[in-house]
Amino acid sequence: MRRVAVVGAGMTEFREHFGLGIKDLVPRAVSEMAATVDKGLDRADIQAAWFGELTTSDGFPSGILADSLGLLDIPVTRVENACATGNDAVRNATYAVASGAVDVALVVGADKVRESSSRSTFWEWAGLTRDMAWDYPLGLVAPANFALHVARYLHESPATREHMAMVAVKNHKHALTNPKAQLRYEITVAQVLAAPMVVEPFGLLDCTPQSDGAAALLLVAEDVVDRYTDRPVWVRGVGLGLDRVMHQHKQDMTTFPPTVKAARAAYTMAGIGPADIDVAEVHDCFTGVELISYEDLGFAERFEAHKLVENGDTTYGGSKPVNVSGGLKAKGHPPGATGVAQCVELFEQLRGDGHNQVDGARLGLAHNIGGPTAVSAVTILGSEK
Amino acid sequence: MRRVAVVGAGMTEFREHFGLGIKDLVPRAVSEMAATVDKGLDRADIQAAWFGELTTSDGFPSGILADSLGLLDIPVTRVENACATGNDAVRNATYAVASGAVDVALVVGADKVRESSSRSTFWEWAGLTRDMAWDYPLGLVAPANFALHVARYLHESPATREHMAMVAVKNHKHALTNPKAQLRYEITVAQVLAAPMVVEPFGLLDCTPQSDGAAALLLVAEDVVDRYTDRPVWVRGVGLGLDRVMHQHKQDMTTFPPTVKAARAAYTMAGIGPADIDVAEVHDCFTGVELISYEDLGFAERFEAHKLVENGDTTYGGSKPVNVSGGLKAKGHPPGATGVAQCVELFEQLRGDGHNQVDGARLGLAHNIGGPTAVSAVTILGSEK
Repeated sequence: MRRVAVVGAGMTEFREHFGLGIKDLVPRAVSEMAATVDKGLDRADIQAAWFGELTTSDGFPSGILADSLGLLDIPVTRVENACATGNDAVRNATYAVASGAVDVALVVGADKVRESSSRSTFWEWAGLTRDMAWDYPLGLVAPANFALHVARYLHESPATREHMAMVAVKNHKHALTNPKAQLRYEITVAQVLAAPMVVEPFGLLDCTPQSDGAAALLLVAEDVVDRYTDRPVWVRGVGLGLDRVMHQHKQDMTTFPPTVKAARAAYTMAGIGPADIDVAEVHDCFTGVELISYEDLGFAERFEAHKLVENGDTTYGGSKPVNVSGGLKAKGHPPGATGVAQCVELFEQLRGDGHNQVDGARLGLAHNIGGPTAVSAVTILGSEK
Repeated sequence: MRRVAVVGAGMTEFREHFGLGIKDLVPRAVSEMAATVDKGLDRADIQAAWFGELTTSDGFPSGILADSLGLLDIPVTRVENACATGNDAVRNATYAVASGAVDVALVVGADKVRESSSRSTFWEWAGLTRDMAWDYPLGLVAPANFALHVARYLHESPATREHMAMVAVKNHKHALTNPKAQLRYEITVAQVLAAPMVVEPFGLLDCTPQSDGAAALLLVAEDVVDRYTDRPVWVRGVGLGLDRVMHQHKQDMTTFPPTVKAARAAYTMAGIGPADIDVAEVHDCFTGVELISYEDLGFAERFEAHKLVENGDTTYGGSKPVNVSGGLKAKGHPPGATGVAQCVELFEQLRGDGHNQVDGARLGLAHNIGGPTAVSAVTILGSEK
């Protein structure tokens, strides 16, 4: 298997871009990416692209790259895998480059969630990507879906809503220095606990905001990496995991099996374990999900995730910094872009360019969990091959 | 690049399955596929899946495989690329197997177009996957979109509506012996020409029907092919091509550049040319599109496609049989399934098991064109490595 490197990474600001469509956001992310390619990128070098987007808001998805970037002569595959879309796009591009079919691949993730027009199918998509026999009629859209898990987790583990609030406080603090983050202000545990309830046990400040944005990566084969940079970041592992969709089929609500499977695949491919990870971007769509994910990713023993936030281990400066970008919670969450943007953060960290730079970071992990808690994608990047 | 073989292929009947959902259709296609694996398939052998589906009609797409097949421990990527979805799913699975990451991959394509409930987002999707600035407001949904091309083609080439009608007559005749085909009856040129007009120059009988259905393939690495069969079919080439979406940007309405690009990529990878193809499944969503595609695929010189139908070259028994399955026109067209089902037909042909068996067929080509005539996928399969 040919090795694959990331040689460029960029993203738009994540926020409510009411004035911009997806065709405006995508080229901005690609330009930001191109500016990070040390020895320059000729657009004609790009041989294929993978485009992660959850739903169509401005025309034919794969065609958006042709229309907005003038990339007419390359194949573009749209990958959609709910909130795991971004890292699954990275995974598919990695396979294509590793196979020898493609030397230089573009990965773009983007979504327009905040629409000023009525043309988006996003919310219909968000409602309908549920089991239609039971979950959907019972109202299990995303917050309720995740809330069932976290409520049970709070019941079975020593973790409390205060620990969840500490995740929100931490990630907002991390976002302060991130120029691309949507919520660049500090909050307190008291504020999180006092916020209006969305769905028990999630108050408003336990939830990610709704965001528009795009992110882009350039993946190249080891054979050509020298043309682009002397300090590549390597794709060390990719993994995707699935679970049954219907909640009556889920065996244990206090864990996400897709994450366990995706992480196992990625760690195995990388030949490392959770202890080796220096910096991680973890899917904190709701604060409690970050806690459960610490355990599923192997960062904490079962029901001990709360200790990591209590001790400040996962805060910037701690032993296992998580979401130094601000995470979904404060950086924002345009679903198709999120996983790709996590890899943008890791790219910067592993090259020593992070805004909250983790000293000596050599291995980074990006993690998504999505769908009806039914799919997870994990990417491991490293500064060494 | 590791070689990839198809060792199993199956599909449901294509028709209006009002009583069946996508979760009923997918397992039936996979069972049909498993029955063709000569030495048997243990479900636990499947390591990853690619699922081609245009739009969600019954829940989280990737999760449909977990829910309906019990395939809980494998990664599933949903690929969506308009009517090129099926062959693009084959392409992505091929890369993953070729890379060494996966030895045994399942490819499933499926779509539910005919809904008895109001839950499908299909028609909204079909409307919205257009350019939103110009094409959509001007009414350019699929038939109108393709009609602009074919009308200009009729103007510039010697082809006539009679030649288009001959395509329909041929494909209906081919479908007669296909137990999976939707329209198993013969029609005449006079009937096609007298049919109600849908959009000039397409009468009702120039158009594919609306279909529900699913199709499945098993792709394996050359290293493990002997475990499954002694008569594999090989993936010789894959290609995907794009074009601009907006019609004012299309340079020549009488050709589909995405097909030219996809075919070039696939022929190059296979090390063959159009003359080497023994049997082809060509995207005849509208009759005139089959004619234009003869030229784009290199089967005919420019503006000479009509000669192939006049001479019976592309009729079963002719020198270059096209759509011996019945094609989209008479076999049916559940968009996500179509490309995969084309490969099912080629698998049977290349193993000598076709219902309209082409004598000595050794190389077959499958072709899709879709989106706003903006994407094409081509797969070349061969009986020899």
